[in-house]
Amino acid sequence: MRALPAVMQRGRAVKFPNDDELAMKDKCMIRTVFWQDGAVGMIDQKALPLEERYLTLDRWEDVAEAIRDLTVRGAPAIGVAAALGIALGIRNTPAATEEELRASFEGICKTFAKTRPTAVNLFWAIERMKRRFHAALAEDPDVSGPDRFAVIREALIREAVAIHDEDIAANRAMGLHGRVFLEDGDGVLTHCNAGALATAGYGTALGVIRAAHEEGKRLTVYVDETRPVLQGARLTAWELMKEGIPAVLITDNMAAFLMKQGKIRKIITGADRIAANGDAANKIGTYGVAVLAAAHGIPFYIAAPLSTVDLSTPAGDAIPIEERDPSEVTSLAGKRIAPEGIAAYNPAFDVTPARLIAAIVTEAGIARPPYEKSLAALGASKAEMSR
Amino acid sequence: MRALPAVMQRGRAVKFPNDDELAMKDKCMIRTVFWQDGAVGMIDQKALPLEERYLTLDRWEDVAEAIRDLTVRGAPAIGVAAALGIALGIRNTPAATEEELRASFEGICKTFAKTRPTAVNLFWAIERMKRRFHAALAEDPDVSGPDRFAVIREALIREAVAIHDEDIAANRAMGLHGRVFLEDGDGVLTHCNAGALATAGYGTALGVIRAAHEEGKRLTVYVDETRPVLQGARLTAWELMKEGIPAVLITDNMAAFLMKQGKIRKIITGADRIAANGDAANKIGTYGVAVLAAAHGIPFYIAAPLSTVDLSTPAGDAIPIEERDPSEVTSLAGKRIAPEGIAAYNPAFDVTPARLIAAIVTEAGIARPPYEKSLAALGASKAEMSR
Repeated sequence: MRALPAVMQRGRAVKFPNDDELAMKDKCMIRTVFWQDGAVGMIDQKALPLEERYLTLDRWEDVAEAIRDLTVRGAPAIGVAAALGIALGIRNTPAATEEELRASFEGICKTFAKTRPTAVNLFWAIERMKRRFHAALAEDPDVSGPDRFAVIREALIREAVAIHDEDIAANRAMGLHGRVFLEDGDGVLTHCNAGALATAGYGTALGVIRAAHEEGKRLTVYVDETRPVLQGARLTAWELMKEGIPAVLITDNMAAFLMKQGKIRKIITGADRIAANGDAANKIGTYGVAVLAAAHGIPFYIAAPLSTVDLSTPAGDAIPIEERDPSEVTSLAGKRIAPEGIAAYNPAFDVTPARLIAAIVTEAGIARPPYEKSLAALGASKAEMSR
Repeated sequence: MRALPAVMQRGRAVKFPNDDELAMKDKCMIRTVFWQDGAVGMIDQKALPLEERYLTLDRWEDVAEAIRDLTVRGAPAIGVAAALGIALGIRNTPAATEEELRASFEGICKTFAKTRPTAVNLFWAIERMKRRFHAALAEDPDVSGPDRFAVIREALIREAVAIHDEDIAANRAMGLHGRVFLEDGDGVLTHCNAGALATAGYGTALGVIRAAHEEGKRLTVYVDETRPVLQGARLTAWELMKEGIPAVLITDNMAAFLMKQGKIRKIITGADRIAANGDAANKIGTYGVAVLAAAHGIPFYIAAPLSTVDLSTPAGDAIPIEERDPSEVTSLAGKRIAPEGIAAYNPAFDVTPARLIAAIVTEAGIARPPYEKSLAALGASKAEMSR
């Protein structure tokens, strides 16, 4: 990994809206993960908020490791990172024959598929890259040897960059659809980070908050710190401050008290995988927030792109829940907080049942219960649109 | 403050059961706060679990500061510390006249009353010391001058040590009453630290767990880490490991998921103040745990001595809630985790309404709803017994 200064190098292949203009702004858009000069660039989320540092990864294995160790995290961002990593891998791996090219491609995809189990965007992105790879193989059967492979490699880079760009567009669409749920004066609770840093840019749940803020609604965002990895305290707080959206940091166990006090009027989070019936896996703690919301009569919303919806998983109990190292619970940033030898449990996600979710905001529109129908219909409409 | 080695000096005035025997045991009883050679000894709870360090405080002002800065914490322990601190203060403050003695005493009591607002045990202990002081003044009107004051000072030390000793006895009684609620094989959740470290010894909620463990019930205790000050991760985990009671540390936001999984069958916490109607103030996060318990059909118990019951406060909304410095939220174990300048909210307690509490375990027996009647009856029965 090479560390870049805070003002990063410009990547040739990144189609980024108003790039120069944004770069000059103080509140510039956050660039989470992107194609850059034949490498994958990303902001180092492990260093935030104490340090704003960009990394340029020249090796695809480092991109896989960056997903594994949470340098890049957030379901949509993981998908984008995997797509860019696959493009990087196939670009840099020599192949003399189509057989070798296929074998390399499969190996790279397999490595990415093993990085994290819960976010379905990862598998969605890998599948999409596979389809593009096989289509590219089929497209140019007449060009031979290295030239043919160069065309295929270029096609995969373009596909990964398209996934990146479409993600930002989807988030902006989610913002426009979802902002109607937030009213002027609302206190809004969010859990974990479903912001620009969890996506290619703009964010899912924070995208909805951004869009409501952009249309002039005065919101106070209550930010759950989100132990053990503190995505709320470190990332969401940082994003909202950068944007000038009023934010108040709380510990996770304070949310119920704020609901009782009437400070929290709406709740919105992202998701890592949504089953066909609307059950949604998201960062550990989301389920508790949703149960508390129901007990206080507060609507609980989810914002996620359709790439997070997994119609092949019928219900939440079939979603694999990642368990991470217990040291995330017993330590913080290398500092031990619990006694040596204590057992700890560290599930990274939980599943919120559909009955606790008031609506799911997607780029194709709002899904409402019963989700079996509404999610399937939105998926079909999006497939129709992109035809 | 003088720091002592882990094996502390023995205080002359501490009546501690089987002291020498315990000192030789590996799993010796934890001595939280105690009278020692004309000073107040305490374990430094800010240093736990990384360091087991005892302090000897020669100045009553340092005892007040130790309460304020959480060197000693937990409602019953705060009461004991204040009583010992008042005894220390009046012992060491010179007075030529009764007027001076009264003025010093009032000043010392006033300082302790300002240390922390929520735990009623503090005010209960101060009131009890005041009663003893005035009784002592009335008792020996014939002895004159310095001798008379020495008798009064000795009476206050004896009263403070009695408060200490009675607290341990009350906790053991709570254990015997409350252990019936815990069954062999139960997973039991506790929040914050209501253990030996929150009391003079043995603990309230952890006292009930200890008593059930001592009668051979196999329990797994799930320990909420309890942000922001991490009393669960630092103190409860340490106590349970020391005792050999199986414990699993979790972050606060994992509790709901464990309830859903069926891992948590019972919940028991302490309290800082219980209103006449049974509403109970306890460490921030307790209210959320109680709401989640109700949603999952899990009984939620409180264990607290009658000194925590404040019959003069009719309901929970009249209990003052301490707000502590936001830096406790923006930092974790002394390390900054959130961006500079982010707003944070830090209420140290919340109130659990009586309707969510299955039973309240006291030293005089079990209170059940309606608490207006049962708490008043237990209070009256205890007053009767001590007559």
